[in-house]
Amino acid sequence: MEGVVTLAAHVAYHGAPFAGFARQPGQKTVQGELERALATVFREEVLTTCAGRTDAGVHARGQVVSFDVAEVLVRDRTPESLRRSLNALTDEAVVVRSVERTRPGFSARFDAQAREYRYFIATGDTPPLFMREFSWFVSRPLDVDAMRRGAAYLIGEHDFKSFCTAASAVGKPTCRFVESIDFAAQEVMGEPVLVMTIVGNAFLHSMVRTIMGTLMMVGRGLREPAWVERVLDAKQRCAAGENAPAQGLVFWAVRY
Amino acid sequence: MEGVVTLAAHVAYHGAPFAGFARQPGQKTVQGELERALATVFREEVLTTCAGRTDAGVHARGQVVSFDVAEVLVRDRTPESLRRSLNALTDEAVVVRSVERTRPGFSARFDAQAREYRYFIATGDTPPLFMREFSWFVSRPLDVDAMRRGAAYLIGEHDFKSFCTAASAVGKPTCRFVESIDFAAQEVMGEPVLVMTIVGNAFLHSMVRTIMGTLMMVGRGLREPAWVERVLDAKQRCAAGENAPAQGLVFWAVRY
Repeated sequence: MEGVVTLAAHVAYHGAPFAGFARQPGQKTVQGELERALATVFREEVLTTCAGRTDAGVHARGQVVSFDVAEVLVRDRTPESLRRSLNALTDEAVVVRSVERTRPGFSARFDAQAREYRYFIATGDTPPLFMREFSWFVSRPLDVDAMRRGAAYLIGEHDFKSFCTAASAVGKPTCRFVESIDFAAQEVMGEPVLVMTIVGNAFLHSMVRTIMGTLMMVGRGLREPAWVERVLDAKQRCAAGENAPAQGLVFWAVRY
Repeated sequence: MEGVVTLAAHVAYHGAPFAGFARQPGQKTVQGELERALATVFREEVLTTCAGRTDAGVHARGQVVSFDVAEVLVRDRTPESLRRSLNALTDEAVVVRSVERTRPGFSARFDAQAREYRYFIATGDTPPLFMREFSWFVSRPLDVDAMRRGAAYLIGEHDFKSFCTAASAVGKPTCRFVESIDFAAQEVMGEPVLVMTIVGNAFLHSMVRTIMGTLMMVGRGLREPAWVERVLDAKQRCAAGENAPAQGLVFWAVRY
C-alpha cells in the first residue's frame, strides 16, 4: 500500500488486570488498551497484530505487536515519541519497551520464526514473596531429571492436540514444532525457582500450561516420563495433566 | 527464667500493606500481625523483638524475630507446626520462613552482629514490570563508578547523624560501623537493575535510604564523590540527599 508505514512495538505486561491479550468487547485486554491508545494518538482506528495471544493472567516480557498507519500521520512523530505517548495512555500494567519502523507489510504474527515462553515454579518450603505474582508455588520436592526425560518426548514436530484446549482444536491444524524445553534452578530475589524455558515455532491455545501441568505430574512422581509419549499419542485433551496456573507463565521473546 | 523457651523466626514480608514493622495502635504492622497470631496460638500475649525495624513500605527477605514463651506452651508443638500456624494466621504479605528453638535469652536485636540491606534501582529506559513493587525506577544513566567512590567515604565507624531522620537522632548515639557498600548490575526476570548491598553493625532510622538518595546525587552527576565526605562531616540531616523511596529497599539478612 502506498503511503502506509508499518511499525512494530515490543510490549511487556502484567497479566493480572487483563482478560488476556486479545480484544474483547466490554473486557479490559492488552490489545484493547493498545488500540485505544493508538486511536487517541492517531485519531483513527488502528488494528494491531501480535506475535502470540496470551490468556487471562499470563504475563509478557517480550510480546511483539505490529500495525500499519498512514505515512502522513507519523511524519512529525518519532518512534520514540510514539512510545512515550503509548506508555502515558495505557494502563501501568502495560509497558511499551520500544517502537520502531519496520519493513512494509511486516507481521508480528506471520513473520515470527520462533516463540519463547518461560514458566516459573517457586520451589521453596514456604510461599514466595517477591515472585508471588509470577510463579506457581509447588512446595513438594520435584524430580527435575524425570521432568527433563518426559519433556524429551515433546521435542520436534508433533500433533499436540492433547495439549490444546479442546474447543480451540476443532477443525484446526494442531501440529507444532517444539525446538527445546529446558529446566534450570535459579534464585530470583533470593527465592528458589525452577524455570522451564520452551521454544517452538508456534503454540496452541494453553499448550505451554498443559505441557507444564503434564510434566508436573512426572516431577511429582505421579507418572513415569514415558507417560508423556502416551499423552501425545492419545490426541485428546483429557489424556494430559491439568493446566498449570496462568500466573507462572511469561511470554518471554520472539525470534524473527 | 525457669520454664521459658526462646524461639527465633525468620520472616519475609512485602512492605506495601504495612505501616512499618513496629506495632502501633490502630495500624496494620508486621509486628502487630505476628503478635496477634502468637496470641491466638498461645492464648496469651507474646512480645517480640526484631533484628531491625523497617519503615512503612520497606520489604524484608531475612528479618529475624525472637520471643519467649512458657515451656509448657510449646511442649506439644514442634517449631515446624508453629511456623505453619503463624503462616496461616498472618496476612499473606508476611511469610514465616522458619521457626527454631534457640538458646535461652537470645535476642534477635541485641545478638545481631551485622545487618545486610539491599537497595534495588531499576535502570531500564522504560519502567520495570516484574520489579515494579521492589525497585526505584531511575531512567537516567548513572555513573556507578562515582557512586562507588562516594560510598567509600562511608565505610568504617562514623557519626551518621546526617543520614538519620532528624527527630530520631535527638539525644541518641548516632555512631555506626558500615562494613561494606557494593554496587552490582544484575538482571532480574530479564529487567536491568543496579543493586546496592550495604552491611553494617546497625543502622539509624532511614539511614540506608538517605545513603542511597545521597549516592544517587553522585550517580546522576549532580555532586562529586568527595561531597559525600562533607555530608558526613556536616552532622545535619539537611546536608544529605533526599530519602530514596521505601519500595526499593529490602532488609536482606542478619548475621549472628
